[in-house]
Amino acid sequence: MKVYRLNQQSKAQNTIAIMSSKGGVGKSTITALLATHLTRIGKKVGILDADIIGPTISRLFAIQSKVVGQDGLILPVTSPLGIRLISSQLLLDQSDDPIVWRSPLVLDLIRQFYVDVIWGDLDYLFIDLPPGTGDVSMTVLESLNVDNIIMVTTPQDIVQDIVGKGIQMAKMVNKPILGIIENYSYFICDQCQKKHPLFHTSERPSIWKKYQLPLLAQLPLDSQLPKLIDNGKIETIDMDTIRQLVQSWRQ
Amino acid sequence: MKVYRLNQQSKAQNTIAIMSSKGGVGKSTITALLATHLTRIGKKVGILDADIIGPTISRLFAIQSKVVGQDGLILPVTSPLGIRLISSQLLLDQSDDPIVWRSPLVLDLIRQFYVDVIWGDLDYLFIDLPPGTGDVSMTVLESLNVDNIIMVTTPQDIVQDIVGKGIQMAKMVNKPILGIIENYSYFICDQCQKKHPLFHTSERPSIWKKYQLPLLAQLPLDSQLPKLIDNGKIETIDMDTIRQLVQSWRQ
Repeated sequence: MKVYRLNQQSKAQNTIAIMSSKGGVGKSTITALLATHLTRIGKKVGILDADIIGPTISRLFAIQSKVVGQDGLILPVTSPLGIRLISSQLLLDQSDDPIVWRSPLVLDLIRQFYVDVIWGDLDYLFIDLPPGTGDVSMTVLESLNVDNIIMVTTPQDIVQDIVGKGIQMAKMVNKPILGIIENYSYFICDQCQKKHPLFHTSERPSIWKKYQLPLLAQLPLDSQLPKLIDNGKIETIDMDTIRQLVQSWRQ
Repeated sequence: MKVYRLNQQSKAQNTIAIMSSKGGVGKSTITALLATHLTRIGKKVGILDADIIGPTISRLFAIQSKVVGQDGLILPVTSPLGIRLISSQLLLDQSDDPIVWRSPLVLDLIRQFYVDVIWGDLDYLFIDLPPGTGDVSMTVLESLNVDNIIMVTTPQDIVQDIVGKGIQMAKMVNKPILGIIENYSYFICDQCQKKHPLFHTSERPSIWKKYQLPLLAQLPLDSQLPKLIDNGKIETIDMDTIRQLVQSWRQ
């Protein structure tokens, strides 16, 4: 399969695909949190929202502006903090317009987002994959120049079963998995401080043990987060776990 | 577009698609809870898992058996309570084998699940759609004989934006939406009884107001549920809200 390259006005030191094979586990939120922290410590970061059908990235940063072209290429939009973003949501007239496309069209737009966007000089390019192990995810992993994958899961066995399919797919295309981030690991009641393992039921080994992958972080279900996200203020969030995770990369 | 019909050994009084356009909101769980309650009150119920790429339905009922054929048709598997099920997961050798198929193949298997399965005489056939407003969901709504849609959402604005796309898609194919079920509406701390609106942040009107659709039910995030689900014991769950919802249908 043809591997696409960024254009001459773009460079990415690290291209990391954020993947989950199961929807609704917080893939886009985690992408945004990682991008935010890296930007805060001075890195140049881009996010390519490859979830063409269910795009959420631009919403997380409350970006309303449309993308514009320049010399036949596309300029990404920029978040308040300076993250460069591209998403199908930025192309729609009405925010609830559905995108009902067959996968070749979806793949073509992702390829354009990769090849035709003027990313500039990036330290990190995150690719927020669509949920599922369908042909779109597979083709993105094969045809874009992805260096590493981060898998996102929740503690539920039933979710981890589906995420296991994603791990097998990453093996099929020989892409290294940096590790696993577990989201919604616990919830702390702000009245009595009880720590609730809301989705944590497992009596069997976790997915990172089963597939011998590093556990990069466990993130709580923080009831403040949805409010900030819904208000497009994800860049105001500063989580210890994300800071530690990024720190550990850089050692 | 050609509309497919069930085979001569099958009949469904009501065919209801459970849809969400956003993944991870509990679509399959709600399908299973509705099917369980209807079976408990004496209805004959089938579930067609149209999420070919990320199948979870058979896992919810802890079904390990494989489907078998009969005279060129397919026999569904049966849950302990008697729900008839078909899912791509029941065709796999290894539970973590990924299904990396392009959408025409996916659609062909869904069509087979609809047309070639000996469903028998059903009061309700639930079709658990894949997440997203992609071409698979669209084609299923257009080409199977779906009577009604139930949309599933969570309270988050960002999720409801995506679910709005699903509502628009249902309009495009002229399929009536029975109403909306909101999942993860709140969580009650079992130590101090505080009711946490975990994902509930909205200061703007909810999706059912925006699109003038009935709100069918609001389900809590119950920390007992994931444990029962992970252990395949969803049929032991008896929720007031589900019971009331089904009761309201039958009046």
